[in-house]
Amino acid sequence: MLVLGIDPGYAIIGWGAVNYSSGRLVPVSYGAITTNADTPFADRLKEIGNDIGVILDKLKPQAISIEKLYFAANTTTAIDVAQARGVIVYEAAKRNIDIFEYTPLQVKQAVVGYGRAEKNQVMELTRQLLKLKSVPKPDDTADALAIAICHAHSFNSQSYAVLKNLK
Amino acid sequence: MLVLGIDPGYAIIGWGAVNYSSGRLVPVSYGAITTNADTPFADRLKEIGNDIGVILDKLKPQAISIEKLYFAANTTTAIDVAQARGVIVYEAAKRNIDIFEYTPLQVKQAVVGYGRAEKNQVMELTRQLLKLKSVPKPDDTADALAIAICHAHSFNSQSYAVLKNLK
Repeated sequence: MLVLGIDPGYAIIGWGAVNYSSGRLVPVSYGAITTNADTPFADRLKEIGNDIGVILDKLKPQAISIEKLYFAANTTTAIDVAQARGVIVYEAAKRNIDIFEYTPLQVKQAVVGYGRAEKNQVMELTRQLLKLKSVPKPDDTADALAIAICHAHSFNSQSYAVLKNLK
Repeated sequence: MLVLGIDPGYAIIGWGAVNYSSGRLVPVSYGAITTNADTPFADRLKEIGNDIGVILDKLKPQAISIEKLYFAANTTTAIDVAQARGVIVYEAAKRNIDIFEYTPLQVKQAVVGYGRAEKNQVMELTRQLLKLKSVPKPDDTADALAIAICHAHSFNSQSYAVLKNLK
């Protein structure tokens, strides 16, 4: 099963595709979509939707795993992140790809084993689980891979036990 | 100039196209897109994007006038409205249609003449300005027409004076 994890945003959108089969996680491809602050917001949405479409058509993931949004202190930012997230979910829905949402707490729980884990721990365990030499950059990409792992874990509780043994 | 006003949402999306030329406003077409609460959210976004696309391709407006979102008490609702709004703006941006945003205050100011106007006054003046027999239903459609008028007014301050005389 190929899972595409997405860390939603409008300036930087992390993405990471992980293949999961027979209890093994293999990173397939990962990166980040970036848009320029000087570009009008509607055109940034256009770039995001276009780039996500290219990634979906190339990788053809079976599932999208995307972070659930919650209220942030900066409301304007939260509204714009939500608008960009809507475009990403829309492009996936148009292709009939299943979409799964996880809270940051669920992601930490799935990757590290407890919800109060620190960001660095999540990144380091993501690196270990995917057998990568270093933590992918930017942070948004590492976050996206963690979100993909979260779905792989949640999808199959038996595989979850296998994955915990990897640590 | 054909302006398409949009009142963003995810359950009901009001829309209203108004032609504006030589200081005259003529309603062209208006209605509402609705989605079902039982439909998964991603599929509701798909329906919204698809329906907006059909409207844009049919009417070919020169400009989109859409309400700016602000923080609402119910954050979950605000995030979902923002996600749907992102899809609407995205479909317009893909077609290179100019997008203009107005706050509810600006809409009231443009239609009624002062920002503290009540909802009923905005609707009644929208009806009068468009020479309609009754206020369009649902309220979201009447709101969308008011948002379209707001852009027509803002676009040309001279026409604004003409329109005020219409009252």
